Amino acid sequence: MRIECIAIGTELLTTRRLDTNSVWLGERLARLGLAFHRKTAVGDNREDLAELFREALKRSDLILATGGLGPTFDDFTKELFAEILGAELVEDAGSRADMLAFYAARNRVPPQVNFKQALIPVGAEPLRNPVGTAPGVWWEDPPGHPGVRIVLLPGVPREMKRMWEEQVEPRLRPLAGPATHTLRMVVAGVPESTLDERTREVRERHGHLDWSILASLTQVELLVRSEDPAALEAVLSDLKPVLGGDLAAVGEANLEEAVLQALRARGETLAVAESMTGGLLAARLTAIPGASQAFLGGATVYTLGAKAALLDLDPAWLGRVGTVSEVCATALAEATRQRLGATWALGLCGNAGPEAEGEAPVGAVFIALAGPEGTQVRALRLAGDRGDIQLRSAAAALDNLRRSIIARP
Amino acid sequence: MRIECIAIGTELLTTRRLDTNSVWLGERLARLGLAFHRKTAVGDNREDLAELFREALKRSDLILATGGLGPTFDDFTKELFAEILGAELVEDAGSRADMLAFYAARNRVPPQVNFKQALIPVGAEPLRNPVGTAPGVWWEDPPGHPGVRIVLLPGVPREMKRMWEEQVEPRLRPLAGPATHTLRMVVAGVPESTLDERTREVRERHGHLDWSILASLTQVELLVRSEDPAALEAVLSDLKPVLGGDLAAVGEANLEEAVLQALRARGETLAVAESMTGGLLAARLTAIPGASQAFLGGATVYTLGAKAALLDLDPAWLGRVGTVSEVCATALAEATRQRLGATWALGLCGNAGPEAEGEAPVGAVFIALAGPEGTQVRALRLAGDRGDIQLRSAAAALDNLRRSIIARP
Repeated sequence: MRIECIAIGTELLTTRRLDTNSVWLGERLARLGLAFHRKTAVGDNREDLAELFREALKRSDLILATGGLGPTFDDFTKELFAEILGAELVEDAGSRADMLAFYAARNRVPPQVNFKQALIPVGAEPLRNPVGTAPGVWWEDPPGHPGVRIVLLPGVPREMKRMWEEQVEPRLRPLAGPATHTLRMVVAGVPESTLDERTREVRERHGHLDWSILASLTQVELLVRSEDPAALEAVLSDLKPVLGGDLAAVGEANLEEAVLQALRARGETLAVAESMTGGLLAARLTAIPGASQAFLGGATVYTLGAKAALLDLDPAWLGRVGTVSEVCATALAEATRQRLGATWALGLCGNAGPEAEGEAPVGAVFIALAGPEGTQVRALRLAGDRGDIQLRSAAAALDNLRRSIIARP
Repeated sequence: MRIECIAIGTELLTTRRLDTNSVWLGERLARLGLAFHRKTAVGDNREDLAELFREALKRSDLILATGGLGPTFDDFTKELFAEILGAELVEDAGSRADMLAFYAARNRVPPQVNFKQALIPVGAEPLRNPVGTAPGVWWEDPPGHPGVRIVLLPGVPREMKRMWEEQVEPRLRPLAGPATHTLRMVVAGVPESTLDERTREVRERHGHLDWSILASLTQVELLVRSEDPAALEAVLSDLKPVLGGDLAAVGEANLEEAVLQALRARGETLAVAESMTGGLLAARLTAIPGASQAFLGGATVYTLGAKAALLDLDPAWLGRVGTVSEVCATALAEATRQRLGATWALGLCGNAGPEAEGEAPVGAVFIALAGPEGTQVRALRLAGDRGDIQLRSAAAALDNLRRSIIARP
């Protein structure tokens, strides 16, 4: 089955809007043993959209389109598909009732523009929207295209996801292929090309599998896909000795989750004091449900005054030793560990840019880890823009902690 | 000029990797008065990639491809374009020297796999990579396709951006159309469909312009594009009275930047105490360069113990009043304001899920704002998953603050 994804919206071509929907859909397809052969984004332009719809009807068996179902003037996905396929739009009573109920529950009356959302092409089925007002469309064997399935989903991620899980996935399951399993290994603290070289021999030994390497600022992922779970287990046992302590996680977890799991397994806790990462490390940890079982909290001590007020550090002394220094990072970690009574505390300071601060060049970062056996501190020089440096610092701090946790008996 | 973007990498079809490159490129094209007519993502699959390259060579004048230039086994963009166009690859001495210098500066020797990156198709020009090891390619009038331009860029965002700015944009500038200007208005605290209705009359009056509405969890953007800056100024002066205090920013700023600017303009400061947002609000503020001029820092008081240790709140008393309550939010804001000596302090507590905590259902959030005229607190019930609720809470807190700042004389 050839499956293609169409994401609709001029914002996807010109502004800072990321198409996260198609990424999510790609993952869900993989669970069914299905995959996109391509994903295309087009603008809210009738001509471009019509051209793409016509192409897609020729080359694909399943077309998943997101966006353009809303109430506003630039939404016309449903109307255009109906026009191309020569189908009329008729009001679906259930969809209209759903919308009225949605607004009634919020003590509001639907704006008049919203009523066009209840229109559905003749021959198609509406997909109910329990968390929004735009119903989706499931259209099997549309006029002139037997065997083709068109699925129109809202562009709002929450609505799209819920509709997929409750109404689209169950309809697709009978068509699913043999499920593809993915072995995902998260490696921290190793550059992508080094990982490539170190794993080459094992990759060649299992060369019939589908391999990819995926580097980000915080970690490198090694992915292997196969229909045979035993083949993936063999890969993992071959790679474990090669990767050693650099293997941070296996499965769905990222570095943050791996650290929280390791802490929880040992009944240990973590607190942080962040200067130049300004809360990013804490936010990445608390994004994970259940983080509070191991992560206690911390101080965002972005300014000298905050370091004094929240951690009782002497501003005059800080001024002398420098707020971008090993000594400062150590003081942040130790004061935080003591104050919050945590097993471990991380202290981060540095200059994330965009300009040098006194003697601290952009990218100079100090990470201290205070733990049961004392405090160790690392000096880093990181590349990239402000966001990159903040993210790399947070990841380096977490990886330090991870290695220290697993190094203890 | 028909311009298309091709993003290459299986990870773009199947896993959690977002194609941020094409979004950035779309913005840069807009500055030149150029735009993508479509963007496509394909996997590291020779057949799919070759099919797309052949199509693109037929329908587009400029092809911008990102990814697949790296050293690893799944990188073959350059090789495939060369094969399709019948061009040989030859080693470019400059690219080889750049790569050796890149590694030498880091006291490393390039892994053998890296040398294939210095190969360039005959007839094409290499684009130097000052921040990485993969050179790009600028290929004008490739064999059999006069008038076509192919630009191959690395997939690593930092490398792609630098190469674009220094080498691609200057080459494209002579081809640029009349520059398109964008009027971007950020509206906070108003749902998308309400904004649609409220702005309809003004939109109709300026119906010849290119309008779009873009909602996210934290704000709604209203975008208008035109080649005529005066037309956009007329739109803005028509919309200002309609939007009133809901208009948070005009231009490139988001809600966070608008708040920091308003604080700086008044010489005021902000501190935060975050329970269920766990550092997210602080991180969003400190992502902005120069945030420390107005943002002092704060406490990530994710646990009861942290609330006691960092803000001296009595744990027994907190247990009685509840850690998800108006009283708790107020105490967080007031203690933080006093301790950090800030003009304003925000205190956030709530339950972001995934499960109810005692009597606090998922989505129950309290936001307190302590300021020069006392403390006000708002109770919210937010929808969505854990990440949505955290993000919506942070945005609601900032918007409360923004409205309070502008309300003062």
